[in-house]
Amino acid sequence: MSSEDFNKRLFKYLDDHQKDYIQRLSDAVAIPSVSAWPDHRPEVFRMVQWTKSFMESLGIAVELADVGEQKLADGTKLKLPDVILGTYGNDKLKKTVVIYGHLDVQPAQVSDGWDTEPFVLTEKNGKLYGRGSTDDKGPVISWLNVIEAYQKLNEPFPVNVKFVLESMEEYGSEGLEDLLKSLKNTFLSGVDYVVISDSYWLGKEKPCLQYGLRGICYFFIDVESSTKDLHSGCFGGTIHEAMTDLIAVMSTLVDDQGRILIDGIYDEVAQLLPEEAEIYKRITFDVKAYSAEAGVDKTIQQDKEQILMHRWRYPSLTLHGIQGAFDGVGCKTVIPRHVIGKFSIRIVPNMKIATIEKLVEKHVKNVMEKRNSPNKVSVKLEHGGDYWLADPNHPQYVAARRATVVVHGIEPDLTREGGSIPITLTFQEQTGKNVLLLPIGASDDGAHSQNEKFDVSNYMNGMKVMGVYFQEVARV
Amino acid sequence: MSSEDFNKRLFKYLDDHQKDYIQRLSDAVAIPSVSAWPDHRPEVFRMVQWTKSFMESLGIAVELADVGEQKLADGTKLKLPDVILGTYGNDKLKKTVVIYGHLDVQPAQVSDGWDTEPFVLTEKNGKLYGRGSTDDKGPVISWLNVIEAYQKLNEPFPVNVKFVLESMEEYGSEGLEDLLKSLKNTFLSGVDYVVISDSYWLGKEKPCLQYGLRGICYFFIDVESSTKDLHSGCFGGTIHEAMTDLIAVMSTLVDDQGRILIDGIYDEVAQLLPEEAEIYKRITFDVKAYSAEAGVDKTIQQDKEQILMHRWRYPSLTLHGIQGAFDGVGCKTVIPRHVIGKFSIRIVPNMKIATIEKLVEKHVKNVMEKRNSPNKVSVKLEHGGDYWLADPNHPQYVAARRATVVVHGIEPDLTREGGSIPITLTFQEQTGKNVLLLPIGASDDGAHSQNEKFDVSNYMNGMKVMGVYFQEVARV
Repeated sequence: MSSEDFNKRLFKYLDDHQKDYIQRLSDAVAIPSVSAWPDHRPEVFRMVQWTKSFMESLGIAVELADVGEQKLADGTKLKLPDVILGTYGNDKLKKTVVIYGHLDVQPAQVSDGWDTEPFVLTEKNGKLYGRGSTDDKGPVISWLNVIEAYQKLNEPFPVNVKFVLESMEEYGSEGLEDLLKSLKNTFLSGVDYVVISDSYWLGKEKPCLQYGLRGICYFFIDVESSTKDLHSGCFGGTIHEAMTDLIAVMSTLVDDQGRILIDGIYDEVAQLLPEEAEIYKRITFDVKAYSAEAGVDKTIQQDKEQILMHRWRYPSLTLHGIQGAFDGVGCKTVIPRHVIGKFSIRIVPNMKIATIEKLVEKHVKNVMEKRNSPNKVSVKLEHGGDYWLADPNHPQYVAARRATVVVHGIEPDLTREGGSIPITLTFQEQTGKNVLLLPIGASDDGAHSQNEKFDVSNYMNGMKVMGVYFQEVARV
Repeated sequence: MSSEDFNKRLFKYLDDHQKDYIQRLSDAVAIPSVSAWPDHRPEVFRMVQWTKSFMESLGIAVELADVGEQKLADGTKLKLPDVILGTYGNDKLKKTVVIYGHLDVQPAQVSDGWDTEPFVLTEKNGKLYGRGSTDDKGPVISWLNVIEAYQKLNEPFPVNVKFVLESMEEYGSEGLEDLLKSLKNTFLSGVDYVVISDSYWLGKEKPCLQYGLRGICYFFIDVESSTKDLHSGCFGGTIHEAMTDLIAVMSTLVDDQGRILIDGIYDEVAQLLPEEAEIYKRITFDVKAYSAEAGVDKTIQQDKEQILMHRWRYPSLTLHGIQGAFDGVGCKTVIPRHVIGKFSIRIVPNMKIATIEKLVEKHVKNVMEKRNSPNKVSVKLEHGGDYWLADPNHPQYVAARRATVVVHGIEPDLTREGGSIPITLTFQEQTGKNVLLLPIGASDDGAHSQNEKFDVSNYMNGMKVMGVYFQEVARV
């Protein structure tokens, strides 16, 4: 049978079972596996068990890897969810693909502004609303649905597959990096490719493959002014307030055009190559749709190339918020004693985390030296993750491009991402192999937002692309 | 019997019943009447009933005044606690004193940093720890204990008393101002004095009477950048972020010496009189103890007069916090869509709220005009309360000074306060009579802080001062 014949049968089988796939995703979304909420940890464990059972029903050998305990802010310890290591096939004549995904989700509650119950998958106008629908339960289940389809069609599977499914991705992937390092010479030894479906298309219509990610340096600025919170009536005017210093420091970090004001921060950013702008020109990207998706009237840059460059190949700085200050509704006349300002810098080739850390420290020190304040001000790199850049002409990318053409009838755009998926880099380092980011969700899925959704059409087409990808990657 | 003889009997009676008084305060503190927590409203109602029963047992005629409903942020409505109107005595030959106090308390939980359970009154080293011990359950119960003592000693009460006890003081006294206005020609008609014990001594040792309060203008700066929260990886660098604008505006409000940077804000501040510094020199005030109490190494000003002036007769500006930004522990890579910066200005004679509102609006407008941002930025005076200044040589103050001398053996300092008790001004306006602030707690009681306490000695001496005050004020 030609591969075209098989593709037809595969696509028909998948289409015929759409209802089952939606039910399956619905069952998964109904488990509120929020990794950031300690009291929901049992639900995360339940999600791991649910997935393990599903995988075992497909004949995938599953091992649960214990990655230890998480230490909470209050000192208590909480067991981390096990990482699922799955092995499907062990044919030395076949290539081996590692598939990574995650089973945990971002926090969600109706009061955040959801139009539907976040943990009840709700279909409306061809869209499946629910927390985790697109990030990342939908894609993970898609891979498994495809294996099931091959089995039902009695088609030999083209490759060996190894699964790494974690459940702390939305809370820093604690334990995973160490686990992968420990698996370098065993579970991960001799694999050929790594594929990850945990990102999104550039737009709502056209598929893409991603070969680059920005990194991140997340900083805490810590200011302490007194040993207790004070009443602004009793003490206001006589005390060097922590918030005054913190706001002053935070105001010196970025200007109204998004330009970072930290001395030297752009020195290591890769120079624009002469032909680089051309790459961006060829990409399909709707500036108006982008503004609409962000929900803003006006972006900082107006033309496509500049917007994409500022998302992918230039650094950016975001002020996220302040811990310890008054954050409730209404009025409270407190002078907060201890406040922590939080900001992060998205980093790009060839910025080095160590350099950025030094530059930020120096900047904060300079600002405070000009202020006449006795308050203790310190800045700390809370978390640093490197950028990632792959070769988009690698055979695995060629295979995924072919699969996209078969399903969608068009070449995917080769794009990068502004966010970071730190594990991408870890997989590249620990396997020494090419990593492919194969998004199947649309840009407006709202992965970390209210009303997260996954289009039914993308769910179905995503499985088809995955199904063909397995054949193509076996060949290249 | 001479008044000295009676004082001796009164003081002995009070001293003999110290244990009972502590138990009574303990019973009151055990009711967590937190007005800011909607789910605790039944506890506030319970506190009103507890006090009503106690008052009625003393023969005080109690009426509960319905002040309507509170509208919560989510639109739901909640019944406001009734205001207790008590009448004790109706002798036309006697003067009538209005006593104001409040039965609600600030929020408190052990996790805020309390060393003991906040709603269990705990005696340690002569101090009674518990939420509401000093603010304001202790003082309110003290007034009632004194009436009971007069009764037990068969001593005719020197004055008529009218009680106004509210239970929303820690959440803006909603409903009270309207109630007092409506009572102007009935309940409040023909009264002679108003006395309020809901403030604190300047230090830990020496009593004082207060004749001035700063007012407050509480502002919200509202910045909206998008219709939903965004991921800083996907959108950082291309969006005019709300936080960047907000922090920029907030950083222009006050400098590192506490000086307000809003143009024209000092124009209406009363000029320093030639002899004014002398008044401050005479006041007993320990700068080191003040720093220790605040828990700071260094205050902005170093000398006594300057510190007191900056607390009482100069305005100050505090940045309280931000609503809508990331305020949790750990790292979250959000671009908040809508943030509200909160700050307040403490106002002094002769600043006018309307002027300040205009100046702040103009300032924010000027700052934003210089920025190139399409974000919607608005500033709103959320709450304005006037300053208050009384005549410290008024007969009621003379009576309270005499009472203080009898109990403490020293003249109280005549001081002002940096905070506002808006109801002071309302009582003055609605009665047209002199209002006296008679604090009985110490400066380190921590009214709105963790580990709020009330010294046993102050509880006892406070009742004695109140007991003598009633005699003296009947005479002046």
